[in-house]
Amino acid sequence: MIIRIIGSGLLGASLGLALTRMGRTVQLDDASELAAGLAQDLGAGKLAGPDSAEPDLIIVATPPETVADIVAEQLARFPHALVTDVASAKAQIYRSLTDKVGAAELSRYAGVHPMAGRERSGALAADADLFTGRPFVICPHPHSGKPVLRLVRELATDLGALPLTMAADAHDDAVARVSHMPQLVSSLLAARLEEADAGELDLAGQGLRDVTRLAGSDARLWSSIIAANTGPVRRVLSELHDDLTDLIAGLGQMQEEGDYRGISRVASVMTRGNAGAARIPGKHGGAQIRYAQIIVLVPDRPGELGRLLTDTGRIGVNIEDLTLEHSPSQPVGRAIMSVAPAQALPLTEGLEKLGWRIAANGEQLV
Amino acid sequence: MIIRIIGSGLLGASLGLALTRMGRTVQLDDASELAAGLAQDLGAGKLAGPDSAEPDLIIVATPPETVADIVAEQLARFPHALVTDVASAKAQIYRSLTDKVGAAELSRYAGVHPMAGRERSGALAADADLFTGRPFVICPHPHSGKPVLRLVRELATDLGALPLTMAADAHDDAVARVSHMPQLVSSLLAARLEEADAGELDLAGQGLRDVTRLAGSDARLWSSIIAANTGPVRRVLSELHDDLTDLIAGLGQMQEEGDYRGISRVASVMTRGNAGAARIPGKHGGAQIRYAQIIVLVPDRPGELGRLLTDTGRIGVNIEDLTLEHSPSQPVGRAIMSVAPAQALPLTEGLEKLGWRIAANGEQLV
Repeated sequence: MIIRIIGSGLLGASLGLALTRMGRTVQLDDASELAAGLAQDLGAGKLAGPDSAEPDLIIVATPPETVADIVAEQLARFPHALVTDVASAKAQIYRSLTDKVGAAELSRYAGVHPMAGRERSGALAADADLFTGRPFVICPHPHSGKPVLRLVRELATDLGALPLTMAADAHDDAVARVSHMPQLVSSLLAARLEEADAGELDLAGQGLRDVTRLAGSDARLWSSIIAANTGPVRRVLSELHDDLTDLIAGLGQMQEEGDYRGISRVASVMTRGNAGAARIPGKHGGAQIRYAQIIVLVPDRPGELGRLLTDTGRIGVNIEDLTLEHSPSQPVGRAIMSVAPAQALPLTEGLEKLGWRIAANGEQLV
Repeated sequence: MIIRIIGSGLLGASLGLALTRMGRTVQLDDASELAAGLAQDLGAGKLAGPDSAEPDLIIVATPPETVADIVAEQLARFPHALVTDVASAKAQIYRSLTDKVGAAELSRYAGVHPMAGRERSGALAADADLFTGRPFVICPHPHSGKPVLRLVRELATDLGALPLTMAADAHDDAVARVSHMPQLVSSLLAARLEEADAGELDLAGQGLRDVTRLAGSDARLWSSIIAANTGPVRRVLSELHDDLTDLIAGLGQMQEEGDYRGISRVASVMTRGNAGAARIPGKHGGAQIRYAQIIVLVPDRPGELGRLLTDTGRIGVNIEDLTLEHSPSQPVGRAIMSVAPAQALPLTEGLEKLGWRIAANGEQLV
C-alpha cells in the first residue's frame, strides 16, 4: 500500500508520521519543497519525485480553497488511485468537484474530516498520536464507490480514530455549530479586551481564560477554514446574533424603563445555556456523567503535585479530570480533581489524613 | 473585634469560616433562619440574636438588589459600626445609598468586591480559602472615611486576598468586560446547542467545552448579578454586537457575492482576538509568560497520573499548569503540562527514558 500525502502542514505531517510508524510507504508532496523536506526530516515519509511508484491512496491535506482543484487533478493523473481529502468543510469541495469531474472518476473519491486540529499549526507541531480517540468523519456522496469508503474507514481505524459517517451538508452544519462558531465567538470576546485598561484585566479570572483560550488560534488558518464554510457559519452566527439583540433589548428595558421584567431575558439565556451545556457529551464518549469535584491546595514546588497524585493513587482513586489553577501572586495552586461520586468521601478523608488541605468539594457536570 | 455577617450564601458563609478560623467573633444574620443555621453548623459563626453584642464591622452579603436598603438600615441601627458590602457591582448601590443616608453616616461605609465566585452557590459550597490569592476590590467614595477604608483593607489582607482600589464606576466597567460579558457570551453560545442534533454534538472537542464551561453557572444568581450592572454590561455587549454584525456581513459578502474580501473581516476579528487574548495577565499575577507545553499519553488507570507526576518531580521540573484531557471512548488520557521553556527538553528526555509516550510539545502563551 503506497500512500501519497499532498500538503505537509499539521495534518499532512501528522498523517505521515502515523502511517510511517505503522509501516506504510508514504510519499510526501508539497508546493513548498521546504515544507515537504521538513516533514521528511521529521520522519513523515519520503519526498515524492518523478520516479516514485504510483500511489494506491492519495490524501489531499492542503488549504481548503485549493482542495477541489488538487483532487480533480490527482483523479485524472492516477486513474487507479483512490483519493480523499482532510479539509474541515466538505460540501463546497464536493459541489466544486462535480463541475470538474465525471461520475465515474468521482466514484474513486470520498472526503473525510479528522477532528484533530489544535491551536498550533505546521509540520513542527505534527504528532503521530494526533488522531487517537478523536472523531474521524467520513462523508459519502451519491457517486462514492465502496472501495474508497472502505479504505478511508480502514485509515481511520488504523489511526486509532473513531470513524463516523455523515452527509457533507450535515457535517458542515455540525462543525459550524460545535467548532467554527465557538472559535469566532471566543475571538470576538477576546477582541473586546484589546481596548481594556490594564487595571481592568487585573480582575480577570479563570472563567475569562477558559472562554478566550481558542482566541489564541492561528488567524490565517482559521480565516480559510471559515471561508470554506461560510453558509452554515453565517446561519448559526445569525441565530446567536438574534439572541444577543434580544438580550441587549432586555438590558435596555431594565436600564431605561426600570422595568425589572427585562431580567427575564437574561434568565432565559442563562437557563437555555445551562441546558445546552448539559448536552455536550461527557468524557469517554459516554452519556454525561456527574463527577464529584475536590479542590486541594498544593504548594507551588517541584514534586508536590506528584506527591498529591501518588497519595491519590495509594488511596485507590482514579482521577477522571484534573486541572491545576494558580492564584495570582500566590505560592499555592489549587488542584481541581474530578472523581466518581462514590470515591469523593474516601478520597477527601484519605487526603486529609495525609495532611492535605481540601479547599472545597462539590459536584459538577462534565 | 466583633463582625456581623448579613447573608449566609456562598460569600457570607465563606467569610464566616475564614474569619472564625482566624479567631474573630462572627455573628450570623440571614432572613432565612435555615440558611444562617446551616452556616452556623458549618462553623461560620454564631447566630445573631437580640442579646448579641454590638458589632464593630457589618458585612452585607445579601443579593445585590437588597444591599442598599440593608446597608442604610445597619448604619442607622448601629451608629458606631463600620459597614461594607460584597456585592459584585458597586455604583448602583452607592447612588441608591446617597438618596437614603446623609454624608456623616455614609463616612462609615465603603463597598468591596472580593472576586471569588465559583459556579456553585450557597453555604454548602462555602470555603475558608475562597479568597486566597484572589483580587479584592475596594471602592472608596467621596464621603468614605479613613477608618472604614483601613478596616476593609485589613480584612482583605487577613483573608489572604489581594486588595486593589478602584472607583465604583471603573470597577463596574471592568467586571462587565472581564466577568459579566464572558458569562453571557458563554451562555449565548451554549444556548445555541439546545437545538443541535445529538450527532452534531458527537463532534464536540475540548474547545467547545472550554468556551461553554461558564454556561453551567447558576441562572438565578447570575440574573441578579447582571441586573445590578445593566449599564456597563449593555455597553460592552453592544460593542460585541457591532463586531458580530460586521462579521456576519463579511460572511454574506463572501457567500452571496463570492467576494473573497469578506474574509478580511474574519481575519480582522481573529487577529484582534489574538491581541486581546495575549493581554490577559498570566499566572502568578505577573506579566505574561511563555511556557512550553508537553503532552504525555497517560493510561486511564488509578495511580498512572501520580506516577507521571512523581517522575516529573524526580526529574526536578516544576509544573506550572496541568490539564488532563480524555479522548472520547479511549482508555487513554492526555496530560498537558506547561513548564518553563528551559525545562521542556530535560523533562521530555527524562520522561521518555522512563517509558512515557510524549504526544507533542510546543509553546503556548498563558
